[in-house]
Amino acid sequence: MRNARRAELQSISPPADLVNQLSSHTFLPMNKLRAGIVGVSGYGGGEALRLLANHPYFDLVHVAGESSAGQKLRERFPGLGALGELSIEKWAPGSLPELDVLFASLPTGESKTGLAQVSTSTKIVDIGGDHRYAPGWTYGLADVWPDRLRAATRVANPGCYPAASLLALAPLLHAGLCEPGAPIIIDAKSGVSGAGRGGGSTFGYAEVNEDVSAYGLLKHSHMPEIAATIAQLSGDASRLVFTPHLIPMTRGILATIYATGSATTEACTTAARQFYADRPFIRISDKPPHTKWAAGSNLAFIHYACDPARKLMMAVAAIDNLGKGAAGQAVQNANLMFGLDETTGLTGTPIWP
Amino acid sequence: MRNARRAELQSISPPADLVNQLSSHTFLPMNKLRAGIVGVSGYGGGEALRLLANHPYFDLVHVAGESSAGQKLRERFPGLGALGELSIEKWAPGSLPELDVLFASLPTGESKTGLAQVSTSTKIVDIGGDHRYAPGWTYGLADVWPDRLRAATRVANPGCYPAASLLALAPLLHAGLCEPGAPIIIDAKSGVSGAGRGGGSTFGYAEVNEDVSAYGLLKHSHMPEIAATIAQLSGDASRLVFTPHLIPMTRGILATIYATGSATTEACTTAARQFYADRPFIRISDKPPHTKWAAGSNLAFIHYACDPARKLMMAVAAIDNLGKGAAGQAVQNANLMFGLDETTGLTGTPIWP
Amino acid sequence: MRNARRAELQSISPPADLVNQLSSHTFLPMNKLRAGIVGVSGYGGGEALRLLANHPYFDLVHVAGESSAGQKLRERFPGLGALGELSIEKWAPGSLPELDVLFASLPTGESKTGLAQVSTSTKIVDIGGDHRYAPGWTYGLADVWPDRLRAATRVANPGCYPAASLLALAPLLHAGLCEPGAPIIIDAKSGVSGAGRGGGSTFGYAEVNEDVSAYGLLKHSHMPEIAATIAQLSGDASRLVFTPHLIPMTRGILATIYATGSATTEACTTAARQFYADRPFIRISDKPPHTKWAAGSNLAFIHYACDPARKLMMAVAAIDNLGKGAAGQAVQNANLMFGLDETTGLTGTPIWP
Amino acid sequence: MRNARRAELQSISPPADLVNQLSSHTFLPMNKLRAGIVGVSGYGGGEALRLLANHPYFDLVHVAGESSAGQKLRERFPGLGALGELSIEKWAPGSLPELDVLFASLPTGESKTGLAQVSTSTKIVDIGGDHRYAPGWTYGLADVWPDRLRAATRVANPGCYPAASLLALAPLLHAGLCEPGAPIIIDAKSGVSGAGRGGGSTFGYAEVNEDVSAYGLLKHSHMPEIAATIAQLSGDASRLVFTPHLIPMTRGILATIYATGSATTEACTTAARQFYADRPFIRISDKPPHTKWAAGSNLAFIHYACDPARKLMMAVAAIDNLGKGAAGQAVQNANLMFGLDETTGLTGTPIWP
Repeated sequence: MRNARRAELQSISPPADLVNQLSSHTFLPMNKLRAGIVGVSGYGGGEALRLLANHPYFDLVHVAGESSAGQKLRERFPGLGALGELSIEKWAPGSLPELDVLFASLPTGESKTGLAQVSTSTKIVDIGGDHRYAPGWTYGLADVWPDRLRAATRVANPGCYPAASLLALAPLLHAGLCEPGAPIIIDAKSGVSGAGRGGGSTFGYAEVNEDVSAYGLLKHSHMPEIAATIAQLSGDASRLVFTPHLIPMTRGILATIYATGSATTEACTTAARQFYADRPFIRISDKPPHTKWAAGSNLAFIHYACDPARKLMMAVAAIDNLGKGAAGQAVQNANLMFGLDETTGLTGTPIWP
Repeated sequence: MRNARRAELQSISPPADLVNQLSSHTFLPMNKLRAGIVGVSGYGGGEALRLLANHPYFDLVHVAGESSAGQKLRERFPGLGALGELSIEKWAPGSLPELDVLFASLPTGESKTGLAQVSTSTKIVDIGGDHRYAPGWTYGLADVWPDRLRAATRVANPGCYPAASLLALAPLLHAGLCEPGAPIIIDAKSGVSGAGRGGGSTFGYAEVNEDVSAYGLLKHSHMPEIAATIAQLSGDASRLVFTPHLIPMTRGILATIYATGSATTEACTTAARQFYADRPFIRISDKPPHTKWAAGSNLAFIHYACDPARKLMMAVAAIDNLGKGAAGQAVQNANLMFGLDETTGLTGTPIWP
Repeated sequence: MRNARRAELQSISPPADLVNQLSSHTFLPMNKLRAGIVGVSGYGGGEALRLLANHPYFDLVHVAGESSAGQKLRERFPGLGALGELSIEKWAPGSLPELDVLFASLPTGESKTGLAQVSTSTKIVDIGGDHRYAPGWTYGLADVWPDRLRAATRVANPGCYPAASLLALAPLLHAGLCEPGAPIIIDAKSGVSGAGRGGGSTFGYAEVNEDVSAYGLLKHSHMPEIAATIAQLSGDASRLVFTPHLIPMTRGILATIYATGSATTEACTTAARQFYADRPFIRISDKPPHTKWAAGSNLAFIHYACDPARKLMMAVAAIDNLGKGAAGQAVQNANLMFGLDETTGLTGTPIWP
Repeated sequence: MRNARRAELQSISPPADLVNQLSSHTFLPMNKLRAGIVGVSGYGGGEALRLLANHPYFDLVHVAGESSAGQKLRERFPGLGALGELSIEKWAPGSLPELDVLFASLPTGESKTGLAQVSTSTKIVDIGGDHRYAPGWTYGLADVWPDRLRAATRVANPGCYPAASLLALAPLLHAGLCEPGAPIIIDAKSGVSGAGRGGGSTFGYAEVNEDVSAYGLLKHSHMPEIAATIAQLSGDASRLVFTPHLIPMTRGILATIYATGSATTEACTTAARQFYADRPFIRISDKPPHTKWAAGSNLAFIHYACDPARKLMMAVAAIDNLGKGAAGQAVQNANLMFGLDETTGLTGTPIWP
C-alpha cells in the first residue's frame, strides 16, 4: 500500500517531486504512527476510520471486527481509496500486530476483557464505555483536561451524552456557579447513530422515523460517568437528573441543561469563554445552537441563558454524537497522547445542509 | 366487552337500505350542524378538515382562506371525496353564511380582529392563540374541564405545547402534589407542523432535516397560557420554565416535565388515573410514551416516574400536535359544545408505523 | 351535492338513543361478521387492524402472531380502545375459532402451508405473496376486477409495487394502447414499510435514512405477478422491466412507467377515466401525483403524460403501500366478498401533512 | 488572517518549524491562489466554502451574496475557524478584488449578466446553469474531458442530474453500445438540496417530508444539456427521456438509466472501467450503489446490469448532488484549470452513516 498512500499524500502535501526531495531530507515524517481500529463496522469505528483515513500522522494499518471479519474495508466502505484494500481481521487482542495506538469501539462488556490483553506498548483509546473512570485509565474529556491526555496511555473516551453535557457544565462548576445540593437537570436529545448497530427491529427505520420518545428515566445508566466528572470539577451531583431522548435523525446530540444558581447569562458566558479560552473545538455561542452546526466535526457549541431572579442557569450544548461524542474526541485524545497538535486531522468544516 | 363494543358501535353505520328507510322516517338527523373552517390551507385547518370530512354531525359547508381563496378544496386536498367540490372563499367574517360552528385557524393576530365580527349565533372554536384566557372566551382544555365546554359559545383551543404539558401536570396540581414555589420545568419537543406554514427558508426541508435546536429560551411566549392554567388548578407557576425544541419530524409533541414534590410514582399515577377516570382520550401509561402512539389521533399518553428522596416528580406526555394539540381537541370541544358524545368523529386508531 | 352527500351519509351514525332503539328492533346487524388477522404485529397486519377497528361490519375477534403471541393487542398498539383487550394468540391455522374472514399477513412462504389448513367456511384474504395467481385463488385487484371478488372465497391480495403499477397500466392495456413487443418500463420507489419488519440492521434507521438505492435489478421477483396481470389484460409483457427503489420515508409508493405507444395524453387520460368510471378509489390526476396524497388511505392517484411523436406514454401512480398496496385493498376486497359497499370502513381522508 | 491560516496549515502540513524552514526555501507555495465565491449562502456555494476552507492551494479571500451581505461568514457557518471572520460582500462583479478564480453559485439567470463583467484575469467556474454549452465556456464534465479543463478559463459546471446521468452513459456512448434512434430513459431521484434555497413553502419541511413525487415530465428543462453532451459523445439523443423525482432527504442523486443495446453486463462494466481507468473519482461497482456511499464526497458510483436478449442496458449512478453534482466537481475543475492534482482538497472519505 505504500505506493498508493504516497499517491494520496500528494493531495495533502506539496507536489510529488517535492515530497521525494523532502523525504530524502527527512523533513516529512514518512514513518507515520501505526494505528488500528477494532469495531470498524460499527458507527463509532466507522467514523474513526473516516477521520484516520486522512490523518497526516496516523497510518491505519489494522482493522478488526466480528460481523465483517474477512471482508476488505472497501466492501463495507465503498468510498475509500487505497485504504479500502485493507482486510478486516478477526478481533484477536492478544496477537495484534505492532501498533502505536488502538481505537476500540466494541459493544458494552467486550472492551473490558479484550483490551486487557493488548500489549502495553500500544496506546489505547476506548470509545466504548467499559473503562470510564476505571483504575489505570484516563477519562478523555480533552477540552477540559488536555494535560491529563498528554501523559496517558490508556484513555477512556467519554460517552456521547456525557460529552455534550459536561462540556456545558464544566465552566459553571469550575467557577463555583452551581449551588451545591440543588438540582442539575440534563434533558438530552440524540440521533439514532448514538444507539449503535444491531439494534434489531426496535431501531428499524419505520419504528424510529417520525417519532420521539424518552427512555431510561431515572435509571442512571449514563449518570455515574456524569456524576463522577461533576465531582472531579468540585461540583455536587446529589441532585443530578439525566433524561435521554431518541430523535429521528442520524447524527447529533443536543443537551438542554437546567442548573441552579444566581449567575447572570453574561457571567456564565464569560466564565465559559475563559475556561475554554485556548481550546480549539469549543464555541461559545450567543444563540441557542443547532446540532447541525457540528455535523461531521469535532466541534461543540454551547450557549447560556440565565434567570438569576429564579436561580435558573440554562445551558444548551450541541455536538455530533459521532464527532465530539465519539470518534472525533477519540482522535483528538490520540493527537494529545502523541504530542501532535490536537486539531490534526480534525479541521474539516461541518457538513451543511 | 359487550357494553364497550356497543359504545363503539355508535360510530358505525347501518346498511344502505336501512339508511334510506330511516331517512324517510326522519330518524337520522338530515339537517346536520353546519360547520365552517377559516384557515383551511394551514396545517391546523387542514387537520380540522380531515376530521370534519367524516364527522357524523358536522356538515362542512364553508371553508375560507387567504392563500387559497378561489380554489376548490380538492385542488389543495386531492384525496377528498364529494367534499372536494367546495370552493375556498375569501375570509369575510362579517358576512359568513349561517353556520352553527366556525373553526378558526388563522395566523397570530388575525383572529382577534376577524372573529369579533362573527355573528353570535355561530359558535366559535379558535385553534389559534389570540383568545386564550381572553374575556368571554372559554379555555378549551376539554379533558380537564369538559363541563365548561358544554355551555361555551366562544372557545379558545389550547396551544399544542400547553395541551401536552398541562394534561400531564393537571392531576399533580389538582392533588396538591407539586411543592409551591418550587421549580416546574417543561422541556418540550415538537414536530415541524407545529410551526405553521409560510415559515420561509427557516423551515425549509434542508434547514430543518437532520437537526435539533432549542428556541425561545426563557422568552415566555407560551408561558402565560401554561401559567394561567396552572393557577386555575391552584398551582404555583412562579418558577415555571418552558423550553421548546424543533424536531425533524412532521407530527408529534413530547413534553418532559420535571416537577418538585415527594409523591411516589404510584401516587402520581393513581392520581392521574382518578383525575382522568372518565376521560376517553387520556391514557396513563406505565412506560414512557412515544409521540407515534398518538399519530393522527386525539389521544394523549402520560407517564410518571418519581424519585421522592430527591423530590423529583417526572412526567412525560405524548400527543399529536395537530390532534390533541390543535384540530383534534377543537373537534372534541365542538362535540361538547353541541351536546354530542365527545368522541364523535374522533375514534380513529392512530396511524402506525 | 345532495345525492353525493347522502351516499357519504351511509357511513355515519344515528345518535346513541336511536342506536338502542334500532338494536332492539334488530335493524342493526348486531351479529357482525367475525374477522381475524394473523401477522398482526407486522406492518400490513397492523394496518389491517387499524382499518378493521372502526369497520362497521367486521368485528375483529381473533388476532394471531408469532413474535407477539401472549400479549394483549394494547401492548403492541397503545392507542386502541376496547379492542386493545384482545389477546394475541399463537398462529394455529388448523384450530382457529369460527371466523367469517381471515386476513393473513405472514412472511413469504408461511402462508402457503398455514392457510391450507384453514376451514373452507372462513374466507381468506392473503396480503402476502404466496398465493398470487395460485390455483383456486382470486387475484384481488379490486379496482380492475371487482366482479371476480364478489364470488371469491380465497383472495390473493396484490403486492404493493404491482398494485401501483397495474392500476396505471390497466386502462392502457385494456384500450389496446400499448404496442405489443415494445418495452414497458416500471421504475418504482417505495417507503420502508414496504420492506416489512425484521429487516435487521439492513433496514436500521441509520442505514436507510438519507439514502436511496435500487435493488433487484432485472431479478424479476415482482415481475411474474405483474406480467401475469398484463397478460390477463391482453397485454404483452415480453419486454417488461421492473426496478424497485428504497426511499427514506415510512409509507408510499410512486411508480413511474414508460410504456410504448402513439396515444396522446388526452387519449390515455380519457381511457383511464372511462375504465375507472365507477371505481371509487381511483383518481385520475391532471398533475403528477405525490405519494402523500394517498397517505393513510386506499386511494390511488394516476397521471398520464405522452409524447406521441416518440411513441412514449408515461404514467405516474401514487399509493400508500400499506393502503392500496396492502391492507386497504385487502379490506376493499373483503367488502366485495361479503356484498358490502366496497368503500365501507375506507372513507377516511388522507393524513396531511 | 495570515497568522490564523498558518496555524491551521499546521494540521495538514509538517510541524511549524519545518514549515518555516520550507517557506524560506520556497518549497511550499506560500502564495496560494486567491479564490472567491458568490452565492455563498446557498447550498452549492456553502459546499464550495466547505471544500475550499481546507484546500491546500486555494485561499478563499472573497465571498459575496445577496441575502447575507454584511454578515460575517461565521454568522452563516458557525463551524468555521479563522475563515469565519471574512465578511460577506454585496455581489459587485465589475469591481471584484483580484482573484485567480471565482466560483459562482447564483440563481438561474443571474450568472449570465453578472459574470460577463468579471475580469478576464479571473478564471470562473459557474456552478449554476446559465453558461452550459454557451460560446466561450467549457462544459466541465471533468471525469470525461479532463483535458478540456486544463486549458479552460471559463467553465460551466454540469448540473447535478446531468452529472450523474452522463457519467453513467458516457462509457456506453463512447464504445458505441447504445443503439441509435432507440430510447434512452433516465429516471432520476434527488434530495432536496438540489432544489436550492428559497423554495418557499413548496419545499417546506412538512410538505416535502414523507413524500415522493415526479416533476417536469417531458418538459425537457434538464434535457438540452444532457442531449448536447450525448451528441458530443457521438450518441443519439433523439429518444432521450428524463424524469426527475424529489426525495425526502437532504443530499444525493440516484439516476436509473434504461438504454437500448445488446451489450452484456460484462461488456458495459469493462467498457466503463477502461473509459474511467485513470479517473480518481469514478467507482464502477458490482452492486447497485447507494447515494449514501457518496455523501459529502466528489465520488460517483456506477453499476451496470444488462439483458441482451431484450436489448436492455441498465445503469445506476449515485452521487452527492452537492459533491459531484455541484461544488465537488467545481473544485475538481478548478484543480485542473490551475494544473493541480485534480484530487486536491477532495480526498475526504464519505460521511457514514
